[in-house]
Amino acid sequence: MTDQPLSESRLHTRFDELGRGLSARVLLSPGDDMAMIGLDSSSRVLVAADQVVLGRHTRMDEDPQAIGRKAVLRNLSDVAAMAAKPIATIATATLSPGRSQAWAERLHAGLHETGLAFDAPLIGGDLAIHSSEDSADVVAVTILAVPALPLDRVISRKGAAAGDLLAVTGRLGGSLQPDGGGRHLDFPPRLEEAIELADSMGEDLVAMLDVSDGIARDAGRLAAAGGVDVRITATSLPCNPGCDWRKAVGDGEDYELLFACRSHPPAMLDGLPVTVIGRFMEASDAPGDVSMEMDGSIRRVADLGWEHAGS
Amino acid sequence: MTDQPLSESRLHTRFDELGRGLSARVLLSPGDDMAMIGLDSSSRVLVAADQVVLGRHTRMDEDPQAIGRKAVLRNLSDVAAMAAKPIATIATATLSPGRSQAWAERLHAGLHETGLAFDAPLIGGDLAIHSSEDSADVVAVTILAVPALPLDRVISRKGAAAGDLLAVTGRLGGSLQPDGGGRHLDFPPRLEEAIELADSMGEDLVAMLDVSDGIARDAGRLAAAGGVDVRITATSLPCNPGCDWRKAVGDGEDYELLFACRSHPPAMLDGLPVTVIGRFMEASDAPGDVSMEMDGSIRRVADLGWEHAGS
Repeated sequence: MTDQPLSESRLHTRFDELGRGLSARVLLSPGDDMAMIGLDSSSRVLVAADQVVLGRHTRMDEDPQAIGRKAVLRNLSDVAAMAAKPIATIATATLSPGRSQAWAERLHAGLHETGLAFDAPLIGGDLAIHSSEDSADVVAVTILAVPALPLDRVISRKGAAAGDLLAVTGRLGGSLQPDGGGRHLDFPPRLEEAIELADSMGEDLVAMLDVSDGIARDAGRLAAAGGVDVRITATSLPCNPGCDWRKAVGDGEDYELLFACRSHPPAMLDGLPVTVIGRFMEASDAPGDVSMEMDGSIRRVADLGWEHAGS
Repeated sequence: MTDQPLSESRLHTRFDELGRGLSARVLLSPGDDMAMIGLDSSSRVLVAADQVVLGRHTRMDEDPQAIGRKAVLRNLSDVAAMAAKPIATIATATLSPGRSQAWAERLHAGLHETGLAFDAPLIGGDLAIHSSEDSADVVAVTILAVPALPLDRVISRKGAAAGDLLAVTGRLGGSLQPDGGGRHLDFPPRLEEAIELADSMGEDLVAMLDVSDGIARDAGRLAAAGGVDVRITATSLPCNPGCDWRKAVGDGEDYELLFACRSHPPAMLDGLPVTVIGRFMEASDAPGDVSMEMDGSIRRVADLGWEHAGS
């Protein structure tokens, strides 16, 4: 143990390592979008947790209903990334003592209504109050899901090999911009599209995650999990209006599906465009490197994504 | 919606109401120690979540490993209250930016080791960092469990009827006292004892919970869930050394099993004493009233438990 300053990504990496080989019951370890466990009766349940911290992931004065909705949607996006089916949510919140009862009820409404809308009802949780008004509110949501594909198959992050295509749904960039329509707060989790994609591609869909930190980082995660590198073609990026390639790869909070596949994916999924944006290749040095081909030259872009820890 | 000041208990009551009748899949609603859901394949999974807020549930300078352990133990105690078997934990934490990497690793060690020790490995979660050093750290743990009794039976809070006995394991009071040995931070969840109790009593064990807010409040919860009142006999209370009846009913954080039963429970469970401390009776007015027989007179004690909200 060292006494370095806090870094979310360094801690996540370390904790994921400690989470390997825990038990035969743990079928997917920490480090994927969701963990999967086998129940005694041989059925499987997936679980993930995510937080919304005020002042960090939303403004302090954001509408509490929108905060509750975002907290559930982020988790639903993780369920989509596994091509699984959500079944329930559990939420905890620690609020500043300066919040009102009405504020807490609006937060709950955002959690409750969003869960119901996606057939993942809010079935429990806990509410606590900070001892000091200076403490920021924290909302944590845990989501449960079950496999939705035949034979209980789920799509993990691991599986990309050299030669596989990298593809993404929808458009990228600008989620946090004022004219982005608050997309980081309210977005459609790609649940049905993920299942349709997995159904149509079968074994050719080899790895998937949802884009939370920008594809520069998230494509690197798919590459690292597969022990390969990945190269993105800048001109192929499906950018949102007003976004250049830099925003498309680095802004994050797109909550689109980013996946590795062995054949060309369908061009559309239920009206949503699908774009091939790169290709996986043999790892040069340490696996997980992300490079971009742009104007005839190659540049590294792995560091352009959003580091949640700000360090 | 009203603009009253925050009260944890009022909000919990309101949210529990909103959580009823959610879906046929939800077999036990919010308001019990754990929720239970039926999976597509007809097996069942239980889930609960709880938080440890620094400055609220522990000192700000508490050992982070002890904080992680407490966060998991609180949840394990909820699993015990259902006579269920824990299978996995998921944790989220939001830390002050002033914490060190080593602090975070010790917190993780407390979570990880405690989960492993009870066969409920830590399989995932999320770490975030507050935007301001003034914000208190929050640790939330979600626990998953499966039924441990024949026919997937679990023991809910609901079931007490007039004439049933009220009984408790172990001893009560003083968990937060300096000479209490830090019992609120480190205590044995009564997992095996709960299953042994349910096995030995069968259908005569009708309702159960774990003592978190003091038996004055928690006995009232069993009574309210059953639509009855309850009367405690002061002289029967198994008080910890140095505790009078007031501490025994009001201190909380005992994490013992409190249950309603239709016949006399065993006097010991695997070396742990079991004491009958009262009896349920027809509700006088609104169900859930807790009274105590002491020195030949009757007094109401329902308000003596620990209100987490401090309001």
